[in-house]
Amino acid sequence: MKGRLYGIGVGPGDPELMTIKAKKTIEASDIVIVPGEKVEDSIAYRIAKGACENLDEMNLVALEMPMIKDKARLNEMHDRAARKIEKYLDEGKAVSFLTLGDVTVYSTYMYIHKRVVRDGYDAAIINGITSFTAASARLNTDLVEREEPLHVIPATFKVAGMAELLSLPGTKVLMKSGKEIGKVRDAIIAGGQKAMMVENCGMENEKIYLDAKDIPDSASYYSLIIIKEAQEEA
Amino acid sequence: MKGRLYGIGVGPGDPELMTIKAKKTIEASDIVIVPGEKVEDSIAYRIAKGACENLDEMNLVALEMPMIKDKARLNEMHDRAARKIEKYLDEGKAVSFLTLGDVTVYSTYMYIHKRVVRDGYDAAIINGITSFTAASARLNTDLVEREEPLHVIPATFKVAGMAELLSLPGTKVLMKSGKEIGKVRDAIIAGGQKAMMVENCGMENEKIYLDAKDIPDSASYYSLIIIKEAQEEA
Repeated sequence: MKGRLYGIGVGPGDPELMTIKAKKTIEASDIVIVPGEKVEDSIAYRIAKGACENLDEMNLVALEMPMIKDKARLNEMHDRAARKIEKYLDEGKAVSFLTLGDVTVYSTYMYIHKRVVRDGYDAAIINGITSFTAASARLNTDLVEREEPLHVIPATFKVAGMAELLSLPGTKVLMKSGKEIGKVRDAIIAGGQKAMMVENCGMENEKIYLDAKDIPDSASYYSLIIIKEAQEEA
Repeated sequence: MKGRLYGIGVGPGDPELMTIKAKKTIEASDIVIVPGEKVEDSIAYRIAKGACENLDEMNLVALEMPMIKDKARLNEMHDRAARKIEKYLDEGKAVSFLTLGDVTVYSTYMYIHKRVVRDGYDAAIINGITSFTAASARLNTDLVEREEPLHVIPATFKVAGMAELLSLPGTKVLMKSGKEIGKVRDAIIAGGQKAMMVENCGMENEKIYLDAKDIPDSASYYSLIIIKEAQEEA
């Protein structure tokens, strides 16, 4: 019998924000895949270790998922990673693949998932808490209420389109701003909008910025800006 | 010493999609508030019961959070609910308030949270899995990848603005369509877009629709439509 692949979101940082299902599925796996060059360096591994006491006694496999721009090379690496996992599945193994935050939102795991499903294997997604809802909770406020739309925008989105997206009604969440964060901050201030930022939410080096003008020129890849509409009293 | 209020997201339906933190916080509470007229009728209660074995032996309190349009009456009911909770907090109690999905996304709990914080009490948000990431996982696909924006739009948003939002780049999630779902379906088909729908995700009466034309004229309040851009091969 063929095995099964589980893409598992381990949430944004706090191990207790992992779901009961994520913890149980990891603990019942034959193999736990950790994205990165070395298991110990992976943030997803460190989060899971906080919830799964026996993780280090399990069969942990590091799998490089580099963020490179060369599409042909990237495709080739994803093909190779998928084949490696399919070999485990052919042996009937239950394989968990850890990913930060949630699996359905900007997760590189999905490149593997799609290939494995295309090749006729069984693969499932186990949700995790997304970074943007976690950042909002950390700020002790909601993202959206009533009829407000919510727009999640990766900063890699073309800057030309960005101004238009920033002017949409509702709450805007800017993700993965990292190196571009100075430009994003200037666009927010120029548009007269209010913003808050959480850097490395739920991690040891977490930082909170409650005012757009405090946002620095550069920040961690795990930085997230929340722009809310002016609120009426509820 | 004053107590503390916890707004707790119990996720979309499957009790195992509750976070470890949600389960622990509920179990350590003196009082568990359940939205609704009767405790037993509350979906959030039934989800929490699946994860917290001793929930029925705890101090459960039903609190009506009706969805009424009269703003003055609604404000008055929220004020009264907040005062009731503040009495518990004055007695030094730890109070958990259960809410479906996540707390930061369209949760009526936040009306209470804001009042309690304004009145000088301590209140915290414990995240839950949102319905839209859960629906995407249920469909075994992602919501967004790479530079795609994600737009979450409540169907109560003005229909005039809806056409504009539907034409945005990226993935669109339409929430709370319920009674309007026939109109929403027609707008999607008229715009030549592809859509999938999940009704009552993770619950016993869950239904999946993989094609826009299969979407019925009316559906449960807990219905969610996902509209994705045409994908290139990854």
